[in-house]
Amino acid sequence: MGYLEHIETPEDLRKLSIEQLPQLCNELRHFIIEQTAKHPGHLGSSLGVVELTVAIHYVFDTPDDKLVWDVGHQAYAHKILTGRKDKFATNRCYNGISGFPRREESEYDAFGTGHSSTSISAALGMAMAAKMEGNMKRNHIAVIGDGAMTGGMAFEAMNQASYRNVNMLVILNDNKISIDSSTGAMSKYLLSITASPAYNRFKNRLWNLFTFRTKQSNKITNSLSRLGNGLKGYLLGGSNWFQSLGYRYFGPADGHDVVYLVKTLQDLKKLPGLKLFHVLTVKGKGLEMAEQHQTTYHAPGKFDPSTGQIIHPTREGEPPKYQDVFGHTILEIARQDKKVVGITPAMATGCSLTIMDAEFPERVFDVGIAEQHAVTFSAGLAAEGYIPFCNIYSSFLQRGYDQVIHDVALQKLPVIFCIDRAGLVGEDGATHQGAFDLAFLRAVPDLIIASPLNEHELRNMMWTAYQNAKQGGLPFVIRYPRGHGVLANWHNEPEQLSIGKARVLREGERVLVLSLGPLGNLVAQALDTLESEGAHVAHLDVRFLKPLDEDILRELAVKYPVWLSVEDGTEKGGLFSALAEYLEDHNLSNQLHHIAIPDRFIAHGDIPSIYHEVGFGKDDIVAKIHDILAK
Amino acid sequence: MGYLEHIETPEDLRKLSIEQLPQLCNELRHFIIEQTAKHPGHLGSSLGVVELTVAIHYVFDTPDDKLVWDVGHQAYAHKILTGRKDKFATNRCYNGISGFPRREESEYDAFGTGHSSTSISAALGMAMAAKMEGNMKRNHIAVIGDGAMTGGMAFEAMNQASYRNVNMLVILNDNKISIDSSTGAMSKYLLSITASPAYNRFKNRLWNLFTFRTKQSNKITNSLSRLGNGLKGYLLGGSNWFQSLGYRYFGPADGHDVVYLVKTLQDLKKLPGLKLFHVLTVKGKGLEMAEQHQTTYHAPGKFDPSTGQIIHPTREGEPPKYQDVFGHTILEIARQDKKVVGITPAMATGCSLTIMDAEFPERVFDVGIAEQHAVTFSAGLAAEGYIPFCNIYSSFLQRGYDQVIHDVALQKLPVIFCIDRAGLVGEDGATHQGAFDLAFLRAVPDLIIASPLNEHELRNMMWTAYQNAKQGGLPFVIRYPRGHGVLANWHNEPEQLSIGKARVLREGERVLVLSLGPLGNLVAQALDTLESEGAHVAHLDVRFLKPLDEDILRELAVKYPVWLSVEDGTEKGGLFSALAEYLEDHNLSNQLHHIAIPDRFIAHGDIPSIYHEVGFGKDDIVAKIHDILAK
Repeated sequence: MGYLEHIETPEDLRKLSIEQLPQLCNELRHFIIEQTAKHPGHLGSSLGVVELTVAIHYVFDTPDDKLVWDVGHQAYAHKILTGRKDKFATNRCYNGISGFPRREESEYDAFGTGHSSTSISAALGMAMAAKMEGNMKRNHIAVIGDGAMTGGMAFEAMNQASYRNVNMLVILNDNKISIDSSTGAMSKYLLSITASPAYNRFKNRLWNLFTFRTKQSNKITNSLSRLGNGLKGYLLGGSNWFQSLGYRYFGPADGHDVVYLVKTLQDLKKLPGLKLFHVLTVKGKGLEMAEQHQTTYHAPGKFDPSTGQIIHPTREGEPPKYQDVFGHTILEIARQDKKVVGITPAMATGCSLTIMDAEFPERVFDVGIAEQHAVTFSAGLAAEGYIPFCNIYSSFLQRGYDQVIHDVALQKLPVIFCIDRAGLVGEDGATHQGAFDLAFLRAVPDLIIASPLNEHELRNMMWTAYQNAKQGGLPFVIRYPRGHGVLANWHNEPEQLSIGKARVLREGERVLVLSLGPLGNLVAQALDTLESEGAHVAHLDVRFLKPLDEDILRELAVKYPVWLSVEDGTEKGGLFSALAEYLEDHNLSNQLHHIAIPDRFIAHGDIPSIYHEVGFGKDDIVAKIHDILAK
Repeated sequence: MGYLEHIETPEDLRKLSIEQLPQLCNELRHFIIEQTAKHPGHLGSSLGVVELTVAIHYVFDTPDDKLVWDVGHQAYAHKILTGRKDKFATNRCYNGISGFPRREESEYDAFGTGHSSTSISAALGMAMAAKMEGNMKRNHIAVIGDGAMTGGMAFEAMNQASYRNVNMLVILNDNKISIDSSTGAMSKYLLSITASPAYNRFKNRLWNLFTFRTKQSNKITNSLSRLGNGLKGYLLGGSNWFQSLGYRYFGPADGHDVVYLVKTLQDLKKLPGLKLFHVLTVKGKGLEMAEQHQTTYHAPGKFDPSTGQIIHPTREGEPPKYQDVFGHTILEIARQDKKVVGITPAMATGCSLTIMDAEFPERVFDVGIAEQHAVTFSAGLAAEGYIPFCNIYSSFLQRGYDQVIHDVALQKLPVIFCIDRAGLVGEDGATHQGAFDLAFLRAVPDLIIASPLNEHELRNMMWTAYQNAKQGGLPFVIRYPRGHGVLANWHNEPEQLSIGKARVLREGERVLVLSLGPLGNLVAQALDTLESEGAHVAHLDVRFLKPLDEDILRELAVKYPVWLSVEDGTEKGGLFSALAEYLEDHNLSNQLHHIAIPDRFIAHGDIPSIYHEVGFGKDDIVAKIHDILAK
């Protein structure tokens, strides 16, 4: 009865008539809603590009033509149309398909994505490769959202593309929202371009008259197009940003009119060179609640597919998310000190800075998808006596590494970095695992690096970092994981910690576990089990990776000849390395074992499965200590 | 007789009449030429902004008004006018003043710089701080070059600035050249804006009529300004990039007319809000040879101040620079395989990719100051079967870290990274030391990391990386330092190395030195000295930091109970850590000592002084081994 069931690859899709495509889009949309309702994922953005996805695969010769999805969480329709319909129920599951494009997964995934703003660089590299081969027929398509367009890297690529003549089509998927609302000039500009009455009045005429619906030679098309562009620019008050960068601009177009998209893409396909096609879409399109609450439905978890109602698992008396503890705690501190400000690169909801924003909107800065800027902007605030809490996800801070070194640490500016999503994150997979921050930050002088065992400690560390900043102390990093903590009664009175001081959680015999961060809770459970077996293993909550508590280590080295380090970070460069260095530096012969993220990329899946894979589960820790004890 | 000798601070400067400023500029320019001729530094860019610097300090109330110099190597006139004239002879010297602005050095250095494209973020942070204080009078000025404007971070900041009303003046110092010629759309756009005859014809009238030379209220000024902007946009063919981002655009202005600059800045000072002032300058202005050969005179070394003639130290039979060995070697490989391409973010001359560019311009890509894009663009090329040698300075690769992880390593794309300026670089100082790459890269799975002992090894490693890439191997990093190697007869027949295999350079007794990279040459000298004293110390050239040669380490652990690691990288996370981890993982009780960059930022100075400071000198290595032997 449906078309979708007969489509395995885009070749099947291309057998449909153009008139059949709207129905296919409906089927596809319902399939995504049905599946994502049961198997949570990135719903909103994927619903927004159903028509665009169908149109692209219908018109272009994928996989020979190269298609790169920026960020990639919107690629569900793409996956379903390119051989992964039957596996789609395993989306984001352990050993299932990834929620993002992956080269390993399909030849249709021309380039793996996950982080924002990479697509134009990648597509440009591919387009340049084709050009060097003398192949000016192959098409290279980057689909990038308006939020991702604010990332500096996209601009770098836009800038370079213009001066080498390549065959590339940038499709700007303008849904006026990234994860939180897009901010800044780009967003305002896109609004003006779509809202200008003068422009809209003339749009269709210009479109038909001056741009590409013509059989004339390219030369003529070009000159007409330029005339069209000039007029467009004039009508928009002299500000076509894309044209100023040398792109031939087409649009804006209704991104939910698949027939129109197909016809337009067919025309654009005939036009060689560098083009930008501006498409307007609605995030969550086709599911009313998702359209209305776009931030909530970005990744809503399980929901009722018919109504869209989100199914909240019972959470009575459950511990809060670390994110919310961060949000409430920064608000408490901000209430006491008007110098406290919050900065986020487009993750205000995800990191719960929205809690402070509701009360102090003028002191919360969502700078858009712009990690580099977020860090140095925080440094500028700190240089003038403000106390910035700059909240960035671990894997995204990789984007701001130079700025942490060059603008913050080198100048000893007391920026407080709250690194969210540190450690293994689960379903988002390899691109989003917060595996590297401990290693890449530990190498940087003059940083304080801490990780809390639980919610109380997160509050203590935030309070300590605040007091430290107030006294002009060193920059302070606090890293904590995604998701729920362990204390239902999380709201302690924050306590000021001694910077660089660890704490013994449990004494024991011979073996000492040194853990950093919330994995310590699983360690504690494991030690309970061992205790019940009669094995008394000691436990140190390291608290501060930097500076290390060398005083306590010296004592414990005498007391416990066998050490086991446990950390939710890569085994190269983090806590294990720090302890190994310490032992070597002091010529100590203690044995040192470790549990850490192994030196490979860890794919997606539920946390228990992934934890077990890398040895983080309670039983894995018990087994590891059994091994050690047996030696 | 002169004005300059009476100027200690900008307050003295402000006592001059506006008519006296041109002479002051002449004196300042000659002072810079005289000094830089003897004490090498960044000549060209500093000469280009003499008038602009005088005008800014004359008009604005520095240090209360905040002035941020992007990159900062153009800040010599600034330093001379702000209390550092007498120390200027120590510029870039050990224990002397820094070649870049530093907050520690002067209250006039509002924000330290060194890397590109940070100024707008920092100034925006400061402007936002003032705004939150209710201070809308303080001025915040970012001076940024056209090259730096291509860095994505600048765009991120430009984008955010527009939507919060702050008092910020961005001065675009447009000299049409960054270090090598600027590339890309931004460059083309700036050319069009300055060359448009229609625009230039109307410029003065527009300037006077519609923008800011008016005593009317802001509201009126704004609306007039908007009208002016609209007309400007129209005359420029509908493409004022800056206005499309919400900036009020003024210019272009002659950046060498100090009187005009002063008058214009006085007007701009009265105009609150966000402004962009576009100033045209000539790099090397006032020294004819520097004007004509702008890339050469970016940092020419010693020269004759009257003629500009560069004084080449005698270099007969001297070993070449690693840079030139890279350049000649990639050219040789490129001749054999047309899939080989070279990528550089604006450092074609500095890294000697110019050597390949001369023969294969279509296969060399200078992407502008855009490290993030450079990496992912390389990944895109590799995805299509090309073999990209992506050459980036170590401290600038900090900007491309996320892309190395997310776009290259995660996808196992065989990009070859040639990391230039690795290790301590000397006079450029803390911002440019290549201290962290070993640590931050070692944490990343699926990277091969190598460092050559000398020129032959650099060629061997490039050849090995090429062969590895051709067979679809893992991404390959080769890191090497700035400057001259050790082999006059450098041109060997490249040899394919076994990846991950170290080599014993010298056998010995009890003590083994394990060195990575060219510091091994100083180790060899030190071991010669020790040999002459009768101490036989063994030496391993580690070659590959990753994968480590565990086979040979196992053997050598038995043979040599005492190890000393030597590396030109931070002591946290690099070779020392790798060896400490190895010993712990294998429960080996060998002693491990280390020589590495200590865990603090290392300031500028000549290499011998800095090397001695951190223990890298030959005699320091001898002394260290004496210590070890004495234990």
